[in-house]
Amino acid sequence: MSKLNVFVGPDPRPQMEAAVRDGGGTVVGDPAVADAIVWRGDPQQLAPLLSERVRWVQLPSAGVERWLASGLMDADPQRVWTSATGAYSGIVAEHALALLLAGFRRLPQSARAATWDHTVSGRTLRGATVAIVGAGGIGRALIAMLQPFGAHVLAVTRRGEPVPGADETLPASRVAEVWPRADAVVLAAPATGATQQLVDRAVLAALPTDAWIVNVGRGSLIDTDALVHALAAEQIGGAALDVTDPEPLPDDHPLWHEPRALITPHSANPIGPRSAALADRVRDNVARRIAGDELLGVVERERGY
Amino acid sequence: MSKLNVFVGPDPRPQMEAAVRDGGGTVVGDPAVADAIVWRGDPQQLAPLLSERVRWVQLPSAGVERWLASGLMDADPQRVWTSATGAYSGIVAEHALALLLAGFRRLPQSARAATWDHTVSGRTLRGATVAIVGAGGIGRALIAMLQPFGAHVLAVTRRGEPVPGADETLPASRVAEVWPRADAVVLAAPATGATQQLVDRAVLAALPTDAWIVNVGRGSLIDTDALVHALAAEQIGGAALDVTDPEPLPDDHPLWHEPRALITPHSANPIGPRSAALADRVRDNVARRIAGDELLGVVERERGY
Repeated sequence: MSKLNVFVGPDPRPQMEAAVRDGGGTVVGDPAVADAIVWRGDPQQLAPLLSERVRWVQLPSAGVERWLASGLMDADPQRVWTSATGAYSGIVAEHALALLLAGFRRLPQSARAATWDHTVSGRTLRGATVAIVGAGGIGRALIAMLQPFGAHVLAVTRRGEPVPGADETLPASRVAEVWPRADAVVLAAPATGATQQLVDRAVLAALPTDAWIVNVGRGSLIDTDALVHALAAEQIGGAALDVTDPEPLPDDHPLWHEPRALITPHSANPIGPRSAALADRVRDNVARRIAGDELLGVVERERGY
Repeated sequence: MSKLNVFVGPDPRPQMEAAVRDGGGTVVGDPAVADAIVWRGDPQQLAPLLSERVRWVQLPSAGVERWLASGLMDADPQRVWTSATGAYSGIVAEHALALLLAGFRRLPQSARAATWDHTVSGRTLRGATVAIVGAGGIGRALIAMLQPFGAHVLAVTRRGEPVPGADETLPASRVAEVWPRADAVVLAAPATGATQQLVDRAVLAALPTDAWIVNVGRGSLIDTDALVHALAAEQIGGAALDVTDPEPLPDDHPLWHEPRALITPHSANPIGPRSAALADRVRDNVARRIAGDELLGVVERERGY
């Protein structure tokens, strides 16, 4: 394939159109003549634009639950869909490390203080055991960031194939061994049936009483009511959550006033850096498509992401 | 020298005594027969114990201002004094990174929030320019920690000799060039005459309006009144301070209620990790002394640290 007509929608995006051209593609204004679509809108808006000619759709998000739920991906099983999985890994991993360090260094307590409390005494990543549950792109980027600290990294992946940089890798089937050993747990797994409420009452009871949980995956990975209970009962050290269930967290939710909790409003992947990273991914995938190479982030429908 | 009698005081410390033995030294209970003293008390308490036999004193802190001020180091110019400089570098650098990430990711705002604010949008270290002023042990450890993020590191040292891992190194005489370029400034310089109120009104005006200042050096590096003014006037993005001037910060100080400020109570070097790191340093220096090797952290009186 030497020429690739790409429609960018639903509205024109100069940054994305430049990325298409940088990758060697041709930006077209009419979806009817497009070979590929770079899409930042809803499934409903996209459906009428999907002619038979469109063989590839690039989506803007890493998670594609609502796209799978829409059924649109099943209409033409030969059409390739790519998510932005991995494009934002470094950005989100950086947020995970920010939350982890904030918990260990008791920054939420300091941020809320109005007086000098010399008894505040944090802990260090040096010598700590950090469990990363779901060591995909975000987890791997986080492992690279953790290298200079001297933490012991336990990675958990579905099949347990060794993750580069991790001190140990365990398959998901042995995740129960991880909880009692973890000074911190970072959840970076996708939302699937298998990960629904992975962290429940029993898991929270199995963690050390000073362990921190960081969630940059999906809110549904944690049983929120069980977490509220565990925090109030001082069963764990704290929880730093960028994603919650329900999300957004309602104003009257007890987590807002829990001293051991730190909530960021799904801001791990801020819009400015995210757009730049998506543009890089679009450029790379357009170039790959033209060269006939495998695309990055191909959605596997049967796997659920 | 093959035998080294070491007195540990003012009170017995099993962890330090074990470190002395691990280094090959002999722990003695009487300072009169000591060749060296490992000291965690005040200058006043130490003075009467300093017989002519004591040729080396190991101090517990990285900064030695009050020891220099006490005059005790001048009594016998041939006696060697070592600070713990460098022993805590990794621990303090980790705190500096925690503060820097907290500022960039707007964690103080989130920690103080009681509602989901989807407009919170942080920034990333990727692509940011981080200036490290005083790239000694802490600065160098921080540079290593910053490597995986893709930040551009500007190091400032007294003489400007290239710092490993920094993208650029400038001498202190050219520090004015750094301010307008810095997305973040990390102060990790010692307190000397030359660094007193290094960050003053003019420097604060020269920084980009979204720049963060992190101080893990000494409170006196910043003109606090000028900082309060710059924060209130939104001249800079924010300030995360582990050290302040005055310190402790009084209860009625305006920084406690400044939304762009994050204060930690001189907790960058928490007591548990600190003790472990000091024990490692004592062990290493005892072994070096016995082997006739150069000690780590020798205080240079004329330099002021």
